This record gives sequence, C-alpha cells and structure tokens, in this order.
Amino acid sequence: MERSYLDHNATMPLRPEARAAMCAAMDLIGNPSSVHAEGRAAKSLIERARAQVAEAFGAEGADVVFTSGATEAAALACAGRGLLGAGIEHDAVAAWVETGLTVGADGAVQVTDPAKSVLQLANSETGIVQDLPEGLAVCDATQGFGKLPFAFNWSGAQMALISAHKLGGPKGVGALVVRRGTDLAAQLRGGGQEMGRRAGTENLIGIAGFGAAAAAAARDLADGKWDRVSLLRDKLEQVLVTGASVTISIGKESRRLPNTLCLVTPGWKGETQVMQMDLAGFGISAGSACSSGKVSASRVLRAMGFDELSAASAIRVSLGLETSEQDVLRFADRWLASEKKHRARAA
Amino acid sequence: MERSYLDHNATMPLRPEARAAMCAAMDLIGNPSSVHAEGRAAKSLIERARAQVAEAFGAEGADVVFTSGATEAAALACAGRGLLGAGIEHDAVAAWVETGLTVGADGAVQVTDPAKSVLQLANSETGIVQDLPEGLAVCDATQGFGKLPFAFNWSGAQMALISAHKLGGPKGVGALVVRRGTDLAAQLRGGGQEMGRRAGTENLIGIAGFGAAAAAAARDLADGKWDRVSLLRDKLEQVLVTGASVTISIGKESRRLPNTLCLVTPGWKGETQVMQMDLAGFGISAGSACSSGKVSASRVLRAMGFDELSAASAIRVSLGLETSEQDVLRFADRWLASEKKHRARAA
Repeated sequence: MERSYLDHNATMPLRPEARAAMCAAMDLIGNPSSVHAEGRAAKSLIERARAQVAEAFGAEGADVVFTSGATEAAALACAGRGLLGAGIEHDAVAAWVETGLTVGADGAVQVTDPAKSVLQLANSETGIVQDLPEGLAVCDATQGFGKLPFAFNWSGAQMALISAHKLGGPKGVGALVVRRGTDLAAQLRGGGQEMGRRAGTENLIGIAGFGAAAAAAARDLADGKWDRVSLLRDKLEQVLVTGASVTISIGKESRRLPNTLCLVTPGWKGETQVMQMDLAGFGISAGSACSSGKVSASRVLRAMGFDELSAASAIRVSLGLETSEQDVLRFADRWLASEKKHRARAA
Repeated sequence: MERSYLDHNATMPLRPEARAAMCAAMDLIGNPSSVHAEGRAAKSLIERARAQVAEAFGAEGADVVFTSGATEAAALACAGRGLLGAGIEHDAVAAWVETGLTVGADGAVQVTDPAKSVLQLANSETGIVQDLPEGLAVCDATQGFGKLPFAFNWSGAQMALISAHKLGGPKGVGALVVRRGTDLAAQLRGGGQEMGRRAGTENLIGIAGFGAAAAAAARDLADGKWDRVSLLRDKLEQVLVTGASVTISIGKESRRLPNTLCLVTPGWKGETQVMQMDLAGFGISAGSACSSGKVSASRVLRAMGFDELSAASAIRVSLGLETSEQDVLRFADRWLASEKKHRARAA
C-alpha cells in the first residue's frame, strides 16, 4: 500500500547530504581523542560539523556541546538549577523544571523571570511559536531549528537545545549551545571531550550527519522551501475544518511552524484517529511521540486550558519538504471519510 | 605514506557488517516511539539489535539498555552508589567510585566486597584480564567484549558496561547490561524509552551498527580469529624486548587481551614515542585516548606500583583483525631504530 509519512515533528527522513557525510565518516578509523594522524582526522571532522551547526543556528562564536540528543542537552542545561517553565514544555525539559508559568489560550507563555526560566521556541504538538524574552536562561529550539528563521546570537538566550533528527539528521545526536563564558559543569564525566563539558567518545558518524543536515536545512530555509509546505498545510487545514464542522485547528491565529497542524475533534479520540489513519496508509500522531507510544490526553492542550475530552481528541499532522499536494489531498479524503463515519456512529 | 593503524584499543575500524546495517537503517524514516507503521519498523530494528547484542554478550534474558556509550553506561551504573574500585579502572568509571582497592604488581585487583565493587574485565592499556568474583556489582567489559570469550549470564555480575566502537561498531553507542529485576533509576528523564531507564530518542542507525558489529565480533571470536592476532602480538613482543634491552613488556606473565602490548622504556617518554611513530606512519598510543589527547604518566601503571618515570615512558600497541605480519615487522624495525637513537642521545 502507498504510504504518506505526515509525522515530521516526531522525526524527519534522513537528508541525502547527511547520509553522504555519514558514509564518508565511516571510513575514518581514528578516535577523535587520539593524537596520531588517524585521531586528528576524526577530530577535524567533528570540528567541521561543529562549525556547520553553529553557522546554521546563528551561533558563531558560541560553544556547541554535542550530546546524544536534545534530551541529554535538556538535562545538562536544566537539571538541579530550579528553573521555571510552562506546562507546554516537552517532557525532556519538564522533567527538570517547576512548570508554574502561565500559558494563554493562544499558547503564549508569560515569562516573569527570564534568567531563571526555560521556554521553547516552537511547540512540537501545536507548532505555536513563542516570543523569546531577552536574557532567557534556556531555550528549547528543538522543533524550531531548521524550520524557522532563528539566530541564537540574536535570541538573547544563554543556552539552547537542538536535535539533529528534527531537521533531517540522524536520531541520537543533538547539542547544547552555550554562550561563551557560561559556567557549565559536565554531567557525564571521566574524559575531557567537548571542552570538558561532556565526557565520552564522540558519536563521530552521527555528528558528521548532524553538521551536514544543519547546513542543508539552513540552505533550504533560506531558499524559502518551507513556504510551499506552509501553503500546503493551510490548504489541508481549510479542507479539514470546512469538511468537519466540530473540528478546531489549534493555533490558527498564532504564529506557527510552517508544517504543523493540530486538530481537535472533541469526542473522537486522537489514539483512534492515529490507528485508523495508519491502517489507511498515513503516519500521523496524537501528541508527542517521545513517551514510548503511550497516548493519553495531550499535556500541552491541557496546559492551554482545553478540557480533558478535547485534549484526548487531538491529532498532529506535520508535513515535510518532500510532502506533495497529492499526499495532503489523499489524507484529507480519508480523514474526512473517517470523521463522517465516526459522527454517524456517535449519533 | 603507507600507514599502519595499531591503536585498536582506542577504537576499531567499522566492520563491513556494521556499515551495511547502518546504511539499511538510514532508509527507515520513523521514530521508534511512534505507534504507526513507520515507527514500528524503527522499533523492530532496535529490538533486533538488542537481541544481537544480548546473544553476543551471553546475556540472553538480561536487559540491554542502550546508551550513548560506555561512559554514559558507567554513570548510569555507578553514580551516587558509593562503589569501590581500583586505580586501574578507566576514567569514566573512576569518576564515580572510591578507588581504594589494592592492585598487585601483576595488575590483579583484590576485591573485598564484590556486591559493592566495580571491576574491569580487561585493562585498556595493559590488556591484563581480571578474574571476576561472584556477585560483582558492576563489570566494565568495554575492552574485553568481542576479544575474549565471556558470557554475562555466567559472570556473576549484576551489571556490565559495553561499547560498540571497541568491537568494530560505531562510536557513540554502548549499553548497560542489567540482570533482570535489578532496580535502576533513569538519569536521563523525560521519555519512556529503554524500559523507562534512559530517556531520549534512540540512536537508531548507531544501534543497528552495534547489533551487527556484536554479532560479527562474536562469530570472529568463535572462529578463533584472535588467535592469529595473539601470535602476531607475541612475535612483536619478542622482537622488541629482545632488541631493546631496557624495555619491559607489562603483563607478559598475566592473562592478557590477545591484541595488546604495553611497553615501558624508562626515560623515553611515551608521548615522544607516539609522535615519532606517528611521523613514521604508525598510529599507537601512550595510555588511554579518552582524555582529550592529554598525555601524562599512566595512572594504570602508577596504580600497579610503577614509579613516575616508568609510568610516563609507556606505549600501547594494540593490533586488530586486519593487522598483518608486515604491519608488525615494519613497526618493529622503525621502533627499534628510534629506540637506538634515543639511547645514543641519552648516553
């Protein structure tokens, strides 16, 4: 059966540039910490990727500390610091912060003390983009990086979390980007890698892929490639909310990621929709993918003030650069047909 | 210039089987935590790799918790537990333990309370293999796995650390192997991955490479491929210690890894030897590679009772499955010529 993958916020297909860089890195045999020629060649590849990531993220001159992903970067940036955050933050951030910040019905977070707060650039479920206050302690840029124009050096944030696989790099690689001069103690110890901030032999192949993917993502963004995706998303949104009268599109009035559509159809469980669409050939999601496939009411929507029923009735459709108009129209047909059946059963 | 890589304990070249598995994994587009078909395909690849690693490590039925490497596995197994260890443990383990256990001149560690101790299977610098006591809390099997016959289920250890790149898998992937039923709290939180013991989207491509490399390593070991390497190592040892009268081979009388040679030539700095050999086309090391290229006296040799001068005068030559007799003989020629010059200068 033909399938359309519409879950790009969960993870993106690997970019060809990342694949090529990873295959090339496979030929390097040295450990980046070794002083001999083989080691130096590996080290040089890592430094090249570090420069690529810094440039793509507008973080020239900042420290890019490679980690095993944004989850590790979140722990490194947030654990034990008593930071404040909002209930819409990702689990990997929420695990380390007091989630007391107020969230409006439009998804906007009110930050009262930026120097002690963490705030996401964009939400993975709704795509809603935040205005970052000056002097923010930590910005979770995982979902925004590569899809939105953003420069760390102009953001006013002290640190930011990023992830390779959200922009077409490999899974299992990320970074904590840190303004130079920031005090930051390593959590993984027992080796001097990453300027003493993260011990452990580097994921050489993955880091090479991250660098190449970041460079390619920055180029695609500059070339306006997400504009086409944004139009497709708007078209899909219009067809669905017109065709299904009780369905609400979350964040329609807010600034959003160009690829994300979050739909609430009260009473029709998100989990059920995901399974029905999967059987029909479409990969979509209900909330964040990161919690081992367990799907319940969206914590993000609850934090925005939606009731339990609505928050359990949400799906996320997230498009990619390779998504075609046909993908979107086929999805609209199938989803609307299912929605009609659901209404008939519920009536 | 022709080069011979003789630093396999720092890291091994990627096995062809690992490369093939990684390239295949690059085609999977889903997040292993997603419930749709794309997610399930990714999840299934991880579970296949988990079974491969468990089987290769003789750990069928134990839990294999994938991490970003042995360093992270060491932190997960050891941090905050007040375990005892010896001064010959790797930095990534020593960072978390009281290094008070006695080490003999032969490198053997005396473990007094196994249930509260960590002990390595084999030392990365000397290759010396330990007899593991029954009921050991944590075994660092990083250097032994793939080079020595070993079965976790028969080792009597509660947990063990392993790393992919020490047996021909990619760098940046490892695992903590845990006897089923062991209590173990996650350090990385904010996601339900790895049975709740390690949050973060999995390094899918790297894990696939680890599984394939582990399976291939187990097969090569069973086929006796390290026996040839062991004979080459013994030949090299004999040529060098015969040719350089003050040079001592560490661990010659002990059970050792088949590929490792640790040579002390008092007064000739290991660092200098590494650089001279690098210029001559050979990648070797002085001590562990993992401390960001900083080379000083070997902590391992100091713990074994060697004086500062000797401990600063050590090199490690570690062979691989692809090392040829020609590699070894060329190295012996060049090293002996350098040693002669060194003696002439020192005289």
